[in-house]
Amino acid sequence: MPVQRADARRNYARLLAVAEQEIAAHGADASLEQIARLAEVGSATVRRHFPSRHALLEAVFRERIETLCAHARNLGGRADTRAALLEWLSAVTASAATIRGLAIALTRDSAADPAEAHEHCASAQLTEAGEPLVRRATDDGALTPGVTITDLIMLITGIALATEHNPDPATEADRLLALTVVGVSPRQR
Amino acid sequence: MPVQRADARRNYARLLAVAEQEIAAHGADASLEQIARLAEVGSATVRRHFPSRHALLEAVFRERIETLCAHARNLGGRADTRAALLEWLSAVTASAATIRGLAIALTRDSAADPAEAHEHCASAQLTEAGEPLVRRATDDGALTPGVTITDLIMLITGIALATEHNPDPATEADRLLALTVVGVSPRQR
Repeated sequence: MPVQRADARRNYARLLAVAEQEIAAHGADASLEQIARLAEVGSATVRRHFPSRHALLEAVFRERIETLCAHARNLGGRADTRAALLEWLSAVTASAATIRGLAIALTRDSAADPAEAHEHCASAQLTEAGEPLVRRATDDGALTPGVTITDLIMLITGIALATEHNPDPATEADRLLALTVVGVSPRQR
Repeated sequence: MPVQRADARRNYARLLAVAEQEIAAHGADASLEQIARLAEVGSATVRRHFPSRHALLEAVFRERIETLCAHARNLGGRADTRAALLEWLSAVTASAATIRGLAIALTRDSAADPAEAHEHCASAQLTEAGEPLVRRATDDGALTPGVTITDLIMLITGIALATEHNPDPATEADRLLALTVVGVSPRQR
């Protein structure tokens, strides 16, 4: 019945959205009970959509990456190609710690996953999604010659790793990204 | 007897130098037998200077940091304050992976060490040593306003972490440091 299907879709989307928020706030060990409560669904509904904790984490992981890839596609037509790239890099930086936390949790949960497979997968998808933004900004002369999307993903990965034990990792990561964009010492005197 | 003491000092210095090279090449699991062989000393001499593997790793760790701190002091009088800072940042980047590997090995070897204590210690010493170089470069207008030594150490830490699984981490880290210095997109179009 279409009504039930629409309802199920809404529940699924709400669960995923709440799970993303809870995981961003509390890490991959966020409480499933709390997620069900905040999404205002029963635990049977949670189990129907996500038979295991691993399935929920996997769905949030995929959703996070897919959202960033869609964001890159949406920015692809922006006239200011530098601003478009920087907006996307900032979004990737803001999600990098959550994506890494999920990748580690997913690898840890499942012996079947080879170590770091999820992190490699995330990097590969983000690299592909960001490549057109880098190409357009390069064509406009807005990037330092030779900068690649791989460089940018590595720099963001490093910033996420270096700031993960910081009291306020999001603010610190954003600050370091801004410095990386303008350069810590761009000019000769 | 002075002759013996000089001999012992030479053996100690040679062991430490060889250990540094072997650890840089093979990580903290470098073979102690190989280190003794390359330093051309017997295993009794190794044991006299370094009663345990932990003692040797600890000595190399302290030597690496002390060398970088001495390097910073030596660069403190250089007229070109930007070049002085960049030379030092490059040296820190080149050693960052080795220092991290040693810090992890030392933490793992000894239950008495609180987790990450060695990494915090290394960061704190390097921060103090690099601070005068940053201050002089800032006074010359060679740094982006607001850049601190803490930012620079965090960026280098991130670069070391992001490149550690790279096939050629040293080259890649150097490249990412260079991009961080000039900026990936320093100018508005």
